[in-house]
Amino acid sequence: MGNKSLSKHSTCLVFSILLNFLLFGYNLYFSTVDDGGLSWSRGAAEEAEAVAAISCSGHGRAYLDGVTSGDLPVCECNTCYGGRDCSKFSPSCSADVDSGNPLFLEPYWRQRAAASALVVSGWHRMGYSFPDGTNISPELERHIRQLHAVVGNAVTEGRFIVFGAGSTQLLNAAVHALSPGGGGVAAGVVATAPFYPIYELQTEYFASVDFQYQGDTSLWIAGGNSSSTIIEFVTSPNNPDGKLNEAVLKGPNFKAIYDRAYYWPHFTPIPAADDGELKIFTLSKLTGHAGSRFGWAIVKDEDVYNKMLMHMQLNTMGVSRDTQLRALKLLKTIMAEGGGRTIFDFGYQTMKSRWEKLRKVVSVSKRFSLQDVSSHYCVFSGRVRESSPAYGWLKCEREEESDCYGVLKAAGIIGRGGSVFYATDRNVRLSLIKTRDDFDLLVDKLQKLVSAEQDEEEGGGDGNGIEQHVANVTEYQPLRRRM
Amino acid sequence: MGNKSLSKHSTCLVFSILLNFLLFGYNLYFSTVDDGGLSWSRGAAEEAEAVAAISCSGHGRAYLDGVTSGDLPVCECNTCYGGRDCSKFSPSCSADVDSGNPLFLEPYWRQRAAASALVVSGWHRMGYSFPDGTNISPELERHIRQLHAVVGNAVTEGRFIVFGAGSTQLLNAAVHALSPGGGGVAAGVVATAPFYPIYELQTEYFASVDFQYQGDTSLWIAGGNSSSTIIEFVTSPNNPDGKLNEAVLKGPNFKAIYDRAYYWPHFTPIPAADDGELKIFTLSKLTGHAGSRFGWAIVKDEDVYNKMLMHMQLNTMGVSRDTQLRALKLLKTIMAEGGGRTIFDFGYQTMKSRWEKLRKVVSVSKRFSLQDVSSHYCVFSGRVRESSPAYGWLKCEREEESDCYGVLKAAGIIGRGGSVFYATDRNVRLSLIKTRDDFDLLVDKLQKLVSAEQDEEEGGGDGNGIEQHVANVTEYQPLRRRM
Repeated sequence: MGNKSLSKHSTCLVFSILLNFLLFGYNLYFSTVDDGGLSWSRGAAEEAEAVAAISCSGHGRAYLDGVTSGDLPVCECNTCYGGRDCSKFSPSCSADVDSGNPLFLEPYWRQRAAASALVVSGWHRMGYSFPDGTNISPELERHIRQLHAVVGNAVTEGRFIVFGAGSTQLLNAAVHALSPGGGGVAAGVVATAPFYPIYELQTEYFASVDFQYQGDTSLWIAGGNSSSTIIEFVTSPNNPDGKLNEAVLKGPNFKAIYDRAYYWPHFTPIPAADDGELKIFTLSKLTGHAGSRFGWAIVKDEDVYNKMLMHMQLNTMGVSRDTQLRALKLLKTIMAEGGGRTIFDFGYQTMKSRWEKLRKVVSVSKRFSLQDVSSHYCVFSGRVRESSPAYGWLKCEREEESDCYGVLKAAGIIGRGGSVFYATDRNVRLSLIKTRDDFDLLVDKLQKLVSAEQDEEEGGGDGNGIEQHVANVTEYQPLRRRM
Repeated sequence: MGNKSLSKHSTCLVFSILLNFLLFGYNLYFSTVDDGGLSWSRGAAEEAEAVAAISCSGHGRAYLDGVTSGDLPVCECNTCYGGRDCSKFSPSCSADVDSGNPLFLEPYWRQRAAASALVVSGWHRMGYSFPDGTNISPELERHIRQLHAVVGNAVTEGRFIVFGAGSTQLLNAAVHALSPGGGGVAAGVVATAPFYPIYELQTEYFASVDFQYQGDTSLWIAGGNSSSTIIEFVTSPNNPDGKLNEAVLKGPNFKAIYDRAYYWPHFTPIPAADDGELKIFTLSKLTGHAGSRFGWAIVKDEDVYNKMLMHMQLNTMGVSRDTQLRALKLLKTIMAEGGGRTIFDFGYQTMKSRWEKLRKVVSVSKRFSLQDVSSHYCVFSGRVRESSPAYGWLKCEREEESDCYGVLKAAGIIGRGGSVFYATDRNVRLSLIKTRDDFDLLVDKLQKLVSAEQDEEEGGGDGNGIEQHVANVTEYQPLRRRM
């Protein structure tokens, strides 16, 4: 029995020792190999994950470059939320639907944390140029062409592509490139109201001898033709009202710059690929990365293309290579999933749902109305679809309420007055592309306003207590910080 | 004996089983915790490390956004190197020391891979603004002020800081801001030859009614005073010759823009902190990240500051938030090590060593000479030091060799001709801040040229076979890619 017991024990012992060796070996191997997938990037990855793990109650977020408290950055809260973790709501706070900050797409990127993460090495593209001598990433350009092919919103074959710091830089580059210059007659620059005000502000700011802002397009229609060059800005879909505008001036001296910032399935059915001479796109309203300042122009004429490249070179020496790397990662993420369709499904569903809620509230009102939106066949979705524009273009229908911005402001809704867009202040632009918190608060305040409509109608709305309308155009108004 | 043996075996078995439990526990714990430091960032980190591990023989590098072959990006080789891993040297290839590509600092960042790595989340700063409503990172601004305090090259207390896409964007913003505008007399813009050509090219390109390029500063010295505003560009240290220039025009209507791109201990002793009205710095020649396009201006006057902010807003809506994040990481890396001194030690040692080699070669020549560089007390290093400028400003001393660019070109050295800097072509700028490969090849080719000097002198150099000098200004000349 002693021997039998000893033999059993020996077997167990041998087995156990073998197991020990195996486990030791496993530890040894994986301490160098599994972990060893990573060496120099581990610290940065840990730092980023620690920041991403900071809880801001779903009403804010912390960033790696945020102002710190202790070792970690503090939460940056959505409007009307505050406190250390953004959990404190201020009910009396106004719904801020002024700017076109495209945070409605933030949840899409949070859900794709792994796919969209990017590690930048300390020595990434320190130099000026890519191997072909340009400052335009060939890989990024290739992905942009692929994306347009998937969406069907722009012809890129046989066209040149220029990168800019958002569409902003490209707008003025295009005006420069389309102006004859060389001491001839200055080109005229026009747009049709209501329009995105930066066209006029930018053109006037640069005060070039080669071009000059010339007012509304309508002034030139009567004239029929022009002996000097007239450059027409066409925003399609339009900012603020979402209409699929077309150039109205036609003739040899009329040139159109198509601002296609919103020509994505989030906001509009895509009737056809833009086949025009010069069209400008931006990451801001496509992926929601307004802060990255990345845009591109698709140009037919080689001479115009070369002039725009010259502009980029003399103005900023091209777009930051870091920004180009980031844009590439974002487009890769989009394209890798569902052949590039999921971001548009997400964007469209979000916008459609917001429009349904907004329409429902406004539909019972006689005091307020929203713009009509058309339905079109969409080449991307393969069916007829309604538009879901980035902005509500709200109108105050009561004759005496000509200051619609003021009417809403008094009710705790900060929109952007129509006069900012060279329309009247009977309209107000309501941004529907900000955070869910901003949108929910807008619907809530609007609901209260509409609910009170019957009572108000008895007394007649006189705009009492309405503050002076001050155009607050945060997309382009510089805000400064005192030291 | 059986029982004794059994007891020994039992003890071993118990011990072994305990060890098994311990090892199991260890594995279980660290499979979730050690590895678990990382979740969403792991894939991006692995991808970046795989790219960084691509061997390019020390004569090139692969980037995450490089053109791929198979799954991985291909090596981008230094000039004169080629092949899959950049190991093939072409001896007949010319030394290209034309551009100011600051790759001499690349080894510094490779040595600090972990400290300088950055992980960007998919949702990083999608919106337009920082919490204070500006588009300027307060953390980055704070680090910039700290860095100047360490180096002692600029007064920042009580000054405003504006960010731009490299110094390039800030140069024109400053001209705009210093011009009176408003339909008055256009301001004149001047610079003293030899000077960085973008001042003239940019000013003329923008063709503003508010300012005009007016030629060399010397034309205005005789006049003494001016009734209209004259804006003087002062590059100090100067590009191309490294001199510590001062503004030459003094008076109420004269305004100076100090371009301080090279005012760092890599290139010059720092005699004193610049206390002037408007000075412009750039990351390009400080950390070597020219591709990031990040610069800043330090401004005394609040009105000028506000005008420059307006320029940034209407031109590009500020600097990419991705670029700002990257710049912050780079400055944090610098500041965390040796109180911010090691990058300057590295940069200065590299430049000093290059100058010693260059001087040694040229010192035995009568045909070529280099600019004199002065010594100054340096507040940063606390001692008298010689300059080690970014560029050699080589002169052809033989009367008949007035096309010095051509003389060098024929000998396999591509510099930048003096006429590009509005000097004569008797001088050529040689960039000393490119890769070590570029520098070594320059010294090699120059050595051969000097060695052959005696033989050549007998026959008399007539510039035979010299190609036509075509100014090749790659820092700002747009290079386009055909589709």
